Amino acid sequence: MAIPLLNCDMGESFGNWHLGLDADAMPFVDCANIACGFHASDPHVMRRTVKLAVQNGTRIGAHPGYPDLMGFGRRSMACSPEEAEDMVLYQVGALAGICQAEGTQLSYIKPHGALYNDMAANPALLEGVMRAVRAYDASLPLMIMSTADPEPHRELAAQIGITLWFETFADRAYDGNGHLASRRLPNAVHHDQNTIVNQAVMLAKGEPLTALDGTQLQLACDTLCVHGDNPESVAAVRAIREAFQALEQA
Amino acid sequence: MAIPLLNCDMGESFGNWHLGLDADAMPFVDCANIACGFHASDPHVMRRTVKLAVQNGTRIGAHPGYPDLMGFGRRSMACSPEEAEDMVLYQVGALAGICQAEGTQLSYIKPHGALYNDMAANPALLEGVMRAVRAYDASLPLMIMSTADPEPHRELAAQIGITLWFETFADRAYDGNGHLASRRLPNAVHHDQNTIVNQAVMLAKGEPLTALDGTQLQLACDTLCVHGDNPESVAAVRAIREAFQALEQA
Amino acid sequence: MAIPLLNCDMGESFGNWHLGLDADAMPFVDCANIACGFHASDPHVMRRTVKLAVQNGTRIGAHPGYPDLMGFGRRSMACSPEEAEDMVLYQVGALAGICQAEGTQLSYIKPHGALYNDMAANPALLEGVMRAVRAYDASLPLMIMSTADPEPHRELAAQIGITLWFETFADRAYDGNGHLASRRLPNAVHHDQNTIVNQAVMLAKGEPLTALDGTQLQLACDTLCVHGDNPESVAAVRAIREAFQALEQA
Amino acid sequence: MAIPLLNCDMGESFGNWHLGLDADAMPFVDCANIACGFHASDPHVMRRTVKLAVQNGTRIGAHPGYPDLMGFGRRSMACSPEEAEDMVLYQVGALAGICQAEGTQLSYIKPHGALYNDMAANPALLEGVMRAVRAYDASLPLMIMSTADPEPHRELAAQIGITLWFETFADRAYDGNGHLASRRLPNAVHHDQNTIVNQAVMLAKGEPLTALDGTQLQLACDTLCVHGDNPESVAAVRAIREAFQALEQA
Repeated sequence: MAIPLLNCDMGESFGNWHLGLDADAMPFVDCANIACGFHASDPHVMRRTVKLAVQNGTRIGAHPGYPDLMGFGRRSMACSPEEAEDMVLYQVGALAGICQAEGTQLSYIKPHGALYNDMAANPALLEGVMRAVRAYDASLPLMIMSTADPEPHRELAAQIGITLWFETFADRAYDGNGHLASRRLPNAVHHDQNTIVNQAVMLAKGEPLTALDGTQLQLACDTLCVHGDNPESVAAVRAIREAFQALEQA
Repeated sequence: MAIPLLNCDMGESFGNWHLGLDADAMPFVDCANIACGFHASDPHVMRRTVKLAVQNGTRIGAHPGYPDLMGFGRRSMACSPEEAEDMVLYQVGALAGICQAEGTQLSYIKPHGALYNDMAANPALLEGVMRAVRAYDASLPLMIMSTADPEPHRELAAQIGITLWFETFADRAYDGNGHLASRRLPNAVHHDQNTIVNQAVMLAKGEPLTALDGTQLQLACDTLCVHGDNPESVAAVRAIREAFQALEQA
Repeated sequence: MAIPLLNCDMGESFGNWHLGLDADAMPFVDCANIACGFHASDPHVMRRTVKLAVQNGTRIGAHPGYPDLMGFGRRSMACSPEEAEDMVLYQVGALAGICQAEGTQLSYIKPHGALYNDMAANPALLEGVMRAVRAYDASLPLMIMSTADPEPHRELAAQIGITLWFETFADRAYDGNGHLASRRLPNAVHHDQNTIVNQAVMLAKGEPLTALDGTQLQLACDTLCVHGDNPESVAAVRAIREAFQALEQA
Repeated sequence: MAIPLLNCDMGESFGNWHLGLDADAMPFVDCANIACGFHASDPHVMRRTVKLAVQNGTRIGAHPGYPDLMGFGRRSMACSPEEAEDMVLYQVGALAGICQAEGTQLSYIKPHGALYNDMAANPALLEGVMRAVRAYDASLPLMIMSTADPEPHRELAAQIGITLWFETFADRAYDGNGHLASRRLPNAVHHDQNTIVNQAVMLAKGEPLTALDGTQLQLACDTLCVHGDNPESVAAVRAIREAFQALEQA
């Protein structure tokens, strides 16, 4: 059993505005997805966050987004695949430059928000992002949403020549296709810590989840997305970490 | 005699707005100072410009500026040395990422506009920029204005542990301290091509210039700034290049 | 016969970047759609452009767009109707403030680029924009694309309580639904000045156009979009103006 | 005795980032300085803040700043007086547009942060801002720092043809010239609520303050700056409000 890596968005402050309990969550996660200035963060915040990751021995991933600070990168933008490719390169390079200054380096790339969702739905956009990863460093894994049928994305990645890390969620219900259930549905988001930890453990063990429509869902899970927004989500991260440690010792 | 490198600002378009005759000037310069998105350029323009430099065998320098697109980086901003340090790192990294995708790499760093001028006047700010260069890659030379007394800057660079390239101008008159004469003074800017080429050749030969107040000015000259804004300036670049080729063959 | 108003995008420069032959086109148009800083322009450019419109007696319209300078407002963004409403209000107010300083005022509102296209396709977004117009000043007409069936948009405008100005194009072919034919189709864009002027005159006379599929298309035409990007388009504007003057004198 | 108006910065959130306890402070202040999108805020936040001010019967002032979201408008920028003039007009108009949509209007203008400080030190810049106020609406008062010698600013305002509101601070110590003592000095900032309320009452009564160097300082005080950043500052606002109510009833 390969315990999935815990990944968490970090460095989402911007200038005078603070967001996220980065220092509290960092010790308990494996991977810090650090915002790169297009949807959040700035050079100062990025450097502070890279230092914090280095102090905690956390792997650093570039977290590039659409150029939309006002919308926090959560609004789809009709960028062409070529525009997305170059935007990802720019942001990955910017964070890599700061890593280099701190004597460390990037370990993976995870697009943010609407870019992450859009590339899951739009193969041409996904290819643009994959081309950016390959052009920058084909050995860096690209994090992508795990769904019921990962084969098309695996094939595209193999064709382009990069590696994928499939990501799952412990605090969200899935629909029968293995997509996250819409937040507008009842029971789409788990708030109870036991439910969250149980789902994390099932994903780690490779056990199928039951989708909202009753489908049994077998999800590839290289990494699990966790959150450091507030004390409750940090507590959930700690609980998942403890459960995973128990699994490893079992 | 070491012929100075010709450096030229490139990649100053932004989105739908075009600026500069990059393709016309690129073949005649040694060094392309490529804007990094804070005062001009965007990821798409940067990639196009890096490709153009690679095609022409032109060395690429990062040209970071203040975060002021509306003011083209020409307005001083009261950034702290630490802010300037991190802004330079971010921009240098972003361009380096695009260079890496194109199979090339940075050769030097030249701050832009008001940041370039402010660091010449403000030792704390200069130190911040130098720390960024050292942290990123201490082997990359930092371009800085040549003045009558380069020693303080040389000492600071030695202390920080980086290399300087002193830059001079062929189309500008100097005051007695070796600073560029204010554009508001008559005769501050040379428009006549012969005057420009003559000054370039004197700088290349290490001959002193006569400042506006009559002072004889001996300027260190590792590199000469040229311009690709319009057909006249591109013609001047070609004329300087031919004069330098004649010098080399002499 | 009501001669349609000629409207033209103006004030699309930004900081150091210049775009458009505003001074050449302004004397020949009735309506200047002035960019408001989100997709193009800045406070300085806006003021200069308002002055130019006042000098020429040209009516001023606010030309709000998506917040995307890099994409020139031409990339769709998934803004909610409420976000679009507030963005339009902000930009309209900003231009109105500059008009007030120059002793003039707004005459209409025309959304720009992707926002203009998206609101034609998305009734909820259109309603958001209409609410902004009503909340700001219900007497200001909203410019909107003329199509084969203007009734749904007329009804929505009546329900919201605002006035529409239907806009047509003289240099573009139409499909059978009265939408602009995709630029990727052959013959989608007219480059010949006679063709452009003829289509303008037919629209002014209320004569039907022949769509690419042969459909006879009767288009409401309160205003005609013209362009001031380059000398050819300015020449076309002058030719249309002369043709319209001939119509008026006939 | 004219009780000074309590003014407070409001609407300093931006997109996904929240800042300030606006809803808590609004009921206790007379004047809400609402950020206009250049250093903080966005169209959505501005509209929400204007609604909140209307609900509380609070006067609304435009709070324009330098175009520097990353620096929160706190970094001086070398804008020309003409640039500052147009930036102020743009931002004032934008907020006025949102006010118009909410059936209210602006009552005054108070520049923010570095722009506020720079105009106090730079008469040409101050004149630029004053020209903006006059061009937009000469009846709107301009808030400006009260100092030991208000006459030069009064004269300039009279010459331009606008009205000034002099602003003082209850939580800051003054130097002998009536400037705020540098935050780096000990005792520059008052944290004790009694000290703050006492200074507010002395300013309201027109009694002189004792500067850090012992000078007796008579400060014009049309309005007093208060803060809604955290529970402590909101508590201080309520205490000042109560002390002023006691003064009015005395």
